[in-house]
Amino acid sequence: MLIETVHSPADIKGFDTAQLTALAAEIRSGLMNRLSKRGGHFGPNFGIVEATVALHYVFDSPKDKFVFDVSHQCYTHKILTGRKDAFFDDAHFGDVSGYTNPEESEHDFFNVGHTSTSVSLACGLAKSRDLKGESGNVIAIIGDGSLSGGEALEGLDFAAELGSNFIIVVNDNDMSIAENHGGLYQNLKALRESNGSHYCNLFRAMGLDYRFVADGNNIAQLIEAFSAVKDTDHPTVVHIVTQKGKGYAPAETEKENWHWHIPFDPAAGQAPASDSGENYGDMTCEFLLKKMIADPRVVTMVAAVPVCIGFTPEKRKEAGRQFVDVGIAEEHAIAMASGIAKNGGKPVFATHSSFFQRTYDQISQDLCINSNPATLLVNTASVYGMHDITHLGIFDIAMMSNIPNLVYLAPATCEEYFSMLDWSIEQDQYPVAIRMPCNGVHHTDKPVDTDYSELNRYQVTQQGAGTAILALGDFYQIGEELAKLIAEKTGTAPTLINPRYITGIDEALLTQLKENHSTVITLEDGILNGGFGEKIARYYGAADMKVYCYGLKKEFLDRYAVADVLQSNHLTPAQIYNDVFEGGKE
Amino acid sequence: MLIETVHSPADIKGFDTAQLTALAAEIRSGLMNRLSKRGGHFGPNFGIVEATVALHYVFDSPKDKFVFDVSHQCYTHKILTGRKDAFFDDAHFGDVSGYTNPEESEHDFFNVGHTSTSVSLACGLAKSRDLKGESGNVIAIIGDGSLSGGEALEGLDFAAELGSNFIIVVNDNDMSIAENHGGLYQNLKALRESNGSHYCNLFRAMGLDYRFVADGNNIAQLIEAFSAVKDTDHPTVVHIVTQKGKGYAPAETEKENWHWHIPFDPAAGQAPASDSGENYGDMTCEFLLKKMIADPRVVTMVAAVPVCIGFTPEKRKEAGRQFVDVGIAEEHAIAMASGIAKNGGKPVFATHSSFFQRTYDQISQDLCINSNPATLLVNTASVYGMHDITHLGIFDIAMMSNIPNLVYLAPATCEEYFSMLDWSIEQDQYPVAIRMPCNGVHHTDKPVDTDYSELNRYQVTQQGAGTAILALGDFYQIGEELAKLIAEKTGTAPTLINPRYITGIDEALLTQLKENHSTVITLEDGILNGGFGEKIARYYGAADMKVYCYGLKKEFLDRYAVADVLQSNHLTPAQIYNDVFEGGKE
Repeated sequence: MLIETVHSPADIKGFDTAQLTALAAEIRSGLMNRLSKRGGHFGPNFGIVEATVALHYVFDSPKDKFVFDVSHQCYTHKILTGRKDAFFDDAHFGDVSGYTNPEESEHDFFNVGHTSTSVSLACGLAKSRDLKGESGNVIAIIGDGSLSGGEALEGLDFAAELGSNFIIVVNDNDMSIAENHGGLYQNLKALRESNGSHYCNLFRAMGLDYRFVADGNNIAQLIEAFSAVKDTDHPTVVHIVTQKGKGYAPAETEKENWHWHIPFDPAAGQAPASDSGENYGDMTCEFLLKKMIADPRVVTMVAAVPVCIGFTPEKRKEAGRQFVDVGIAEEHAIAMASGIAKNGGKPVFATHSSFFQRTYDQISQDLCINSNPATLLVNTASVYGMHDITHLGIFDIAMMSNIPNLVYLAPATCEEYFSMLDWSIEQDQYPVAIRMPCNGVHHTDKPVDTDYSELNRYQVTQQGAGTAILALGDFYQIGEELAKLIAEKTGTAPTLINPRYITGIDEALLTQLKENHSTVITLEDGILNGGFGEKIARYYGAADMKVYCYGLKKEFLDRYAVADVLQSNHLTPAQIYNDVFEGGKE
Repeated sequence: MLIETVHSPADIKGFDTAQLTALAAEIRSGLMNRLSKRGGHFGPNFGIVEATVALHYVFDSPKDKFVFDVSHQCYTHKILTGRKDAFFDDAHFGDVSGYTNPEESEHDFFNVGHTSTSVSLACGLAKSRDLKGESGNVIAIIGDGSLSGGEALEGLDFAAELGSNFIIVVNDNDMSIAENHGGLYQNLKALRESNGSHYCNLFRAMGLDYRFVADGNNIAQLIEAFSAVKDTDHPTVVHIVTQKGKGYAPAETEKENWHWHIPFDPAAGQAPASDSGENYGDMTCEFLLKKMIADPRVVTMVAAVPVCIGFTPEKRKEAGRQFVDVGIAEEHAIAMASGIAKNGGKPVFATHSSFFQRTYDQISQDLCINSNPATLLVNTASVYGMHDITHLGIFDIAMMSNIPNLVYLAPATCEEYFSMLDWSIEQDQYPVAIRMPCNGVHHTDKPVDTDYSELNRYQVTQQGAGTAILALGDFYQIGEELAKLIAEKTGTAPTLINPRYITGIDEALLTQLKENHSTVITLEDGILNGGFGEKIARYYGAADMKVYCYGLKKEFLDRYAVADVLQSNHLTPAQIYNDVFEGGKE
């Protein structure tokens, strides 16, 4: 195998095209080995093998610097830069992350996981090079799906100002995670169909030079194009057309399903069937479809991750024009939702907690200053959510709950979640965000409120004495366990409270607790800094109430085991009991 | 005067072109009356008089809906929609804000003040119209300067997907606040120079139809174009070329100075000379220019507001390629700064606190996950900062200080600010943000630290007993006054602490305070929710320490008097003393 001789990019410089093509096939076998056994981003990696080989053949990494957008397509780059064991040797799967990572290699410059950042990051590398009077190429590699993101468009627009060597490889496979959305994709299509010669050209309109490669899975074509722009003295786009999932038939045909895939049997072309039971994605989709049928003003919005709330292609079709995928354009989504609500529509926008980070200003300015009644569904907002450093769901409480006028709700059960969602859609007073449960589907047989318009009323679910537990959202179940433990150990049942409202405190209840409670314990599924518990601590700051806040440390976790993180943050009921009642914390 | 007959847009429908042109001249006299006496956005409003008249002549507001981007150019719109007194009658200046405001008129749909939001907000209005099966035009009016913002570009890209009536008026005066930056401006120039016929067209590349108006200050040309697109069934751009500051010679020639202007003498063409003394903008500029001369790796970055740190056109020229204005593209700026720092440069990016809101995700993902040593200067981050609801500087502590890895510093004096800035530029460990002082230039003759690399060490500036005051940043001076008052009234001097670090707590010091203090008072120049004081309250949650947190309520203030806000938040030393020592707060 050729791959056995490849330990760094230098080792492929002597290969001819036939060898490089053979190497690409070997690389795909390594990708298949890892992806079929461990899961990961399938389509993006299978599609860009040849381009990555050609980039490393033509350019001299790390002097020439590659910045991969999202970087979920960097597996071949890792294989060529000393990390092939993580693909070919199962024992080494854990050696690498699914994204570029400077801690792994000098060939990686940034930890990246969000889309649309590569051009701007790479602009910075190029600017430093110029300030220092150094040479070398800087190359951003960005997929067509990422182009709709505001940060990418800002970067493309600014790049022309660099006035020095800068190369943007646009990897166009005519797909985002789902299909692309946005007018610019008409232009990419026109460019593909005209062999890059269409008179109107988005990239030229942004002030950039432009070059087209019709077959971005053809190594010879790629080498020719990359060689032609190497050491260019001005910003240039190389638009390459690749096939997402190239080399594996199921992924070539079912592109959306194979963007990211769980472990599977390569021969069968699918994962073993499993009945995973109830999940909030499917249930949310069914709920929203019913609402949309009942009321033409209800509109479900996503930003390129429709399946996060169960909207498969079939369900999207069912929803028709009441379903809007804005593409990777979260800022636009929030502002558009505000506009929809202002004009009498009932928008529900859902995306992952981590991606809401792109919309702080839009939530504040476009939505909350205007108090328009849009609903935001915050998905995977939890320590139980996504575990990569770039996709954490533990910051949204700190980020969103301190924005005025927003009502941020944390349901503790399935029934409460759908009741809150129903109320939010029907009301017309408040911008509302709901933290979708992420710790499994917990049902309750107790009645849940249907009206949440009187804000900041916490619910006492168990009246006790001495200690009160305020257990927010996904950590309500920890609160239940803790309450049992305290009752068992001390003989006195504590009060258990489901706060429900993240964005405000129930002053009447908190004041009342002073009567026969000396201790308050807060539990929240997110970082403590800027979070819910600190507001309770401030409220009781000058009172004779001991307040213990439990949640997560402010830090960027990476590829963690939930149990470990809960343990290290003292979040098991036994640890909390020990801290509070046996002086364990001091 | 024609204006005397105009009480609503309906009143201009019978005017002929000559009358409309005469009306425009009268409107300019109203603008001049208000702007010369009260100050405000001069150039944007003087440039768009004819276009606004023509829009109201052709369309039927409020059934047809206008959304003004930034909305700092909406004065003529206000004059034509029942609010002319606020311009012609000095006693009514206070009736209106400087931006669109739904509370003022049914012709305004959003409170807007940040750039680049109009297309997305208007998309929402149009989508609701379509869902409800209604008719009417939706028109976004956006300046060329705003086009570089990611949200605007996302909106332009998405607009093509609407597939129904939607009109985007691009008001091209070839200026942002300062000159434009970005490659797309080359295309706007090509379009202007080709009378709109250039083969490459950014808007067509985004999937939009397109129409050009060569003289956007000519009412007849505008009426023709707007009439042609009225009731269009698909998204269309009308690109109009206007002259910023049109009708007032000083504003036509000195466009940057006259973008926004303080009160002035119209005959003299300038404000009375005043020696405003020391200010942080000019001092920061001088400091950075020296650093840049000494080290070619230092680079100052702004996003369209260069003068916020004193970079006038002359100073920008002086800095040369070590000065980068990215245009209105804050997201790009942060990511590019991260890239510069990664490759050995020393970037300093400055903008207003309110505009940092656009960069939460970039600060978190592009910068802080990667721990690159960029410096962010957070300007007008204070209750003493800007007073419009859309430009508040009281949310940045809650937004930024809970992001891991960021070191957010709050200097209490001028000397401390420059010492922190110098340290930040020279160090290579941390992403650092500095809250530029905003409560006047306070000097100290005491030595300030030059090294801040050992994080979260608060500085005890007065050792006392009983009560400790943690007075952060701009509120340090309130802390000094309060300390004096407590000493006077109680006979015991309190401990006064300058925390300096917003992003972490000095556990050793806080623990030590327990020895001979029973009360801690925190003071911070921002909202309490998610802020600094709450972290102190949490730290002492289970301890026998009374903690009183002082800062601002979580709310969107609007056009406030600082003294009133301080008073209503109990932020005068006398109020605090009364609360804490005489039970005033209970």
